[in-house]
Amino acid sequence: MSKELTSRGEDYSKWYNDLVVKADLADHSAVRGCMVIKPYGYGIWENMQKALDKMFKDTGHQNAYFPLFIPKSLFEAEEKNAEGFAKECAIVTHYRLKTDPNNKGKLIVDPEAKLEEELIVRPTSEAIIWNTYKSWIQSYRDLPILVNQWANVVRWEMRTRLFLRTAEFLWQEGHTAHATKEEAIAETKQMLEVYADFVENWMAVPVVKGVKSANERFAGADDTYCIEALMQDGKALQAGTSHFLGQNFAKAFDVKYVTKDNKQEYVWATSWGVSTRLIGALIMSHSDDNGLVLPPKLAPIQVVIVPIYKGDEGLAKVSETANEIKKKLQAKGISVKYDDRDSQRPGWKFAEYELKGVPVRIAIGERDLANGTVEVARRDTLTKETVSIEGIDTLVDNLLNEIQANLFNKAKARNTELTTTVNSYEEFKKVLDEKTGFVYAHWDGTPETEEKIKEETKATIRCIPLNNLQEAGVCIYSGKPSTQRVMFARAY
Amino acid sequence: MSKELTSRGEDYSKWYNDLVVKADLADHSAVRGCMVIKPYGYGIWENMQKALDKMFKDTGHQNAYFPLFIPKSLFEAEEKNAEGFAKECAIVTHYRLKTDPNNKGKLIVDPEAKLEEELIVRPTSEAIIWNTYKSWIQSYRDLPILVNQWANVVRWEMRTRLFLRTAEFLWQEGHTAHATKEEAIAETKQMLEVYADFVENWMAVPVVKGVKSANERFAGADDTYCIEALMQDGKALQAGTSHFLGQNFAKAFDVKYVTKDNKQEYVWATSWGVSTRLIGALIMSHSDDNGLVLPPKLAPIQVVIVPIYKGDEGLAKVSETANEIKKKLQAKGISVKYDDRDSQRPGWKFAEYELKGVPVRIAIGERDLANGTVEVARRDTLTKETVSIEGIDTLVDNLLNEIQANLFNKAKARNTELTTTVNSYEEFKKVLDEKTGFVYAHWDGTPETEEKIKEETKATIRCIPLNNLQEAGVCIYSGKPSTQRVMFARAY
Repeated sequence: MSKELTSRGEDYSKWYNDLVVKADLADHSAVRGCMVIKPYGYGIWENMQKALDKMFKDTGHQNAYFPLFIPKSLFEAEEKNAEGFAKECAIVTHYRLKTDPNNKGKLIVDPEAKLEEELIVRPTSEAIIWNTYKSWIQSYRDLPILVNQWANVVRWEMRTRLFLRTAEFLWQEGHTAHATKEEAIAETKQMLEVYADFVENWMAVPVVKGVKSANERFAGADDTYCIEALMQDGKALQAGTSHFLGQNFAKAFDVKYVTKDNKQEYVWATSWGVSTRLIGALIMSHSDDNGLVLPPKLAPIQVVIVPIYKGDEGLAKVSETANEIKKKLQAKGISVKYDDRDSQRPGWKFAEYELKGVPVRIAIGERDLANGTVEVARRDTLTKETVSIEGIDTLVDNLLNEIQANLFNKAKARNTELTTTVNSYEEFKKVLDEKTGFVYAHWDGTPETEEKIKEETKATIRCIPLNNLQEAGVCIYSGKPSTQRVMFARAY
Repeated sequence: MSKELTSRGEDYSKWYNDLVVKADLADHSAVRGCMVIKPYGYGIWENMQKALDKMFKDTGHQNAYFPLFIPKSLFEAEEKNAEGFAKECAIVTHYRLKTDPNNKGKLIVDPEAKLEEELIVRPTSEAIIWNTYKSWIQSYRDLPILVNQWANVVRWEMRTRLFLRTAEFLWQEGHTAHATKEEAIAETKQMLEVYADFVENWMAVPVVKGVKSANERFAGADDTYCIEALMQDGKALQAGTSHFLGQNFAKAFDVKYVTKDNKQEYVWATSWGVSTRLIGALIMSHSDDNGLVLPPKLAPIQVVIVPIYKGDEGLAKVSETANEIKKKLQAKGISVKYDDRDSQRPGWKFAEYELKGVPVRIAIGERDLANGTVEVARRDTLTKETVSIEGIDTLVDNLLNEIQANLFNKAKARNTELTTTVNSYEEFKKVLDEKTGFVYAHWDGTPETEEKIKEETKATIRCIPLNNLQEAGVCIYSGKPSTQRVMFARAY
């Protein structure tokens, strides 16, 4: 195979980058830190969108669209939020180019077309949305507002990696408005459950649900709930966040409503989002040294059929059966590609679809036709077996479910294996360096201790797990009393 | 009804703006020229996207995603294209804000975070895409590339109108690469047919298919094909364009491929797009002084059921039957809303759903229950009749098809009525002023004449219709010989 990958053992980071590019998922672009999402990678995103969008609508949300740009005066209205994103904003200052008088055929920014007020390319949309909600909300009858937006956002990151951290990325951002604190908190938790459901049951990636420490909280939130996943290299990846924003944005944008008792109250808010970063999590959870491994529920192609034949006559014979199988599988709602290109040999195709993580491969040879059999290969275990064509649709359907479950169970077992409870800072550091993974340790609850631990070990508190065991102990760093262990890890 | 609309007769333009805002489709935002698309308006766009996306995929296209920003040096590479969009570009010049030392809590652009090269917010993506295709294309085996993108674009328009012309809008842009000129032209025409099919059969808006004159061509295209629709006020609206780009972008970005005979050739290109502007066309084609009229195939809510009752007990009785009807209709794939809110009276609800253009309204009263009947009202004709609940699902299903057909036929009849053939410039001007609509007239084929006519009458050549009748004549303006009549109109 010409598209040789670096192995994970050799260089995990290089393996990841190689894989993203060689499996045709995405590529770097001419714009610093921005990626091109190629059709195969975008196909995964479309499947993610479809599943998530249905979940959002099933929980009563509607989609809408708000402007890409945020006037600076609105951007700075919620101070903590503004401070959190100010250092990584793309800023529009002009609205016209003109021909360069000194350089034929070239353009320059027209200095006469300077904007009176600069526009920030949205890094997140709370500011523009809450400024809009102000005119949507007068009375309790206008609440709740349950709105989601599918959009691109820009955060000027200095060190970027395809899917994981890019200057522009695609995401969805839910922004809801509620009459009461209780209702807003219930919404925040509901969306966390939706994300956990999606990541575990569609992506086959197990997660830990929890709440962030103050240091790791979204800028402008009172509480940030999150789901944390563990990659194959033992590093954590934040897969989704759901924020309880309190009345911070309502106060910044003066959004009040009249209650049933005719009083004026500030509105309560939540926001929640997942992004194309999930594709990075998907890749790093399941893939191997041969390439991508995709969970069947999100694979753009679930089954590929490869013919093995000699000559046009051979191909015609094999194709007849292949197309019958394709139809049967499609009737079960399975997405199938029959690759009958004569420009590539079967061995090349096998390697190609392995690299691209197609869950099931069916090979049909001329000899198989006489026996009424085909060869079925699984991408997850790299095993294959000869099976009867009779009943192939049911067999493949079951196999796809089995692969989906197997991927989740493997990842779940890895998470369990890579979760450690420690009692001292020495042990903590040793586990981080030698075993990696999630490390549960007592912490005194102060931002200062968290900061020190981060500086010294590069580990952060990923979350305080929901329904965490309450137990007296002492902080591994300060020795001060602690009421529970929190979950640390080095993270993407 | 509190949401009184301006009538079309009184002020067509104000009627349109009122309608967009009062029917909850979209609203102005805090950002100059940018709109907020509200959930009800976005629901129409989602239905449009779903239908178009399937058509694109059925014709072999895949979706992908390219960066929002275009470095200035790439933007200016195709000179005509650059020149065409240079005067209306949002330009990013900085990537960081900092706290204002003179103004606590405020932010200013950090002068030290100036970009080395300015970034243009895409007004269209040919430049960034063809710079990318350069690395995707080596041999004839890599062709064709059939890619589409759903995205936001920004054109700094000075005079904006909701949906019709906004600084930011949502659209799809297809960008294809081909080995031969013939194949690229066939693709251009195929996508024009796809657009015509969508606009006529989903939006119920009849169109004229044609090709643009040189003056009206897309900047960077060799030929622009278009579909032109006619609004109720007799003005034309360009509903979609499909461009044959020749080798212009391949040459600007040096994109060549090796042919089967091992020669180097430049690649041939097309691009094609439709945008949220279509929602404006939809509104102005069918709606009336009572509000929106939506074609059933794109209506977010196809049927609304309104209960008429006294007291909780009455509502409970009516709701039982209403919910049964709702289920039956949903089983036919019809989207139904049962509005049992007790905060509004039936008359208010009737007006509200009329304003929002819901195609069919079913009212159920307590008296109806005894008779086994309901009242069914059509939005398009504003007529109503009492029908039996027995077989209501089939009746409504047929009625939705009838409404869809009726809207198209009404618009088609209007187009026919408002299409005039003229023989002199006097007649031309008289028709434009008094009758309006599409005006067919002989033209000498020169940009100069076209420009003069535009200056004097505000009418432009909307297109040279495909399969146009060839007939000798003289130009209505210059008196020079002409071989065919072209289609003029005043346009949005």
